[in-house]
Amino acid sequence: MTGYDDGNIFAKILRGEIPSAKVFETDDFVAIMDAMPQSKGHCLLLPKAPSRNLLDAEDAVLAKALPHVARLARAAKAAFDADGVVVSQFNEDAAGQTVFHLHFHVVPRYAGVEPKRHASGMADPAELREHAEAIRARLG
Amino acid sequence: MTGYDDGNIFAKILRGEIPSAKVFETDDFVAIMDAMPQSKGHCLLLPKAPSRNLLDAEDAVLAKALPHVARLARAAKAAFDADGVVVSQFNEDAAGQTVFHLHFHVVPRYAGVEPKRHASGMADPAELREHAEAIRARLG
Repeated sequence: MTGYDDGNIFAKILRGEIPSAKVFETDDFVAIMDAMPQSKGHCLLLPKAPSRNLLDAEDAVLAKALPHVARLARAAKAAFDADGVVVSQFNEDAAGQTVFHLHFHVVPRYAGVEPKRHASGMADPAELREHAEAIRARLG
Repeated sequence: MTGYDDGNIFAKILRGEIPSAKVFETDDFVAIMDAMPQSKGHCLLLPKAPSRNLLDAEDAVLAKALPHVARLARAAKAAFDADGVVVSQFNEDAAGQTVFHLHFHVVPRYAGVEPKRHASGMADPAELREHAEAIRARLG
């Protein structure tokens, strides 16, 4: 495992250099829609603190992360009337990690519908902004 | 979503009614080897607190969970010289959840080796105990 490279796309999003469909932002985290969603409502939680993945992340960051992931999962499920939610987090190439800034996938699942492959295509940015708004409205 | 049913297999493991290959135990969590591993070193973190999945879990439990997941991921990767680790957590049938007590999968991944399908076969209990010991030895 090599270290953290701040040229990754999520670091650029966190610095505001690349647009994203933001769901919410706190002092420590940003939640955005995945630009290449596997299903309707697929969103991501990104800690602002730099770490490559879970393997080099600090406990203080991790302790705050999962309650946000749960909020996102509940809100995305409610917003799109999903039947379930997969939460996943990939560490290193061999595990399917493609962006080397720690992130958590929140993927709503719908009965009888197979999710798309990871990163199989870009979604319409306007639609992603609508989806972000729909999730935000359910965050309570 | 229905509620929590304490007849599930993880509740039985937590009560000691069914054996498991335990990696570690704290006041709030138990880590065990998955009896139907998707890869060598596939282990699980189970909160002792009853919840069906992430959707009904309490923030206080979730805040403590992820640092343990990270410790398991690092230790399993080191124990088996894995190339990566997938962390996943399934909510409801449509998302592939099969046991309705909150749990986190920690699945070591090896370059060029596809993981087995979830729950595709039972592992040898003696081998699982060896794997649990190998991970425990790397927990530090």
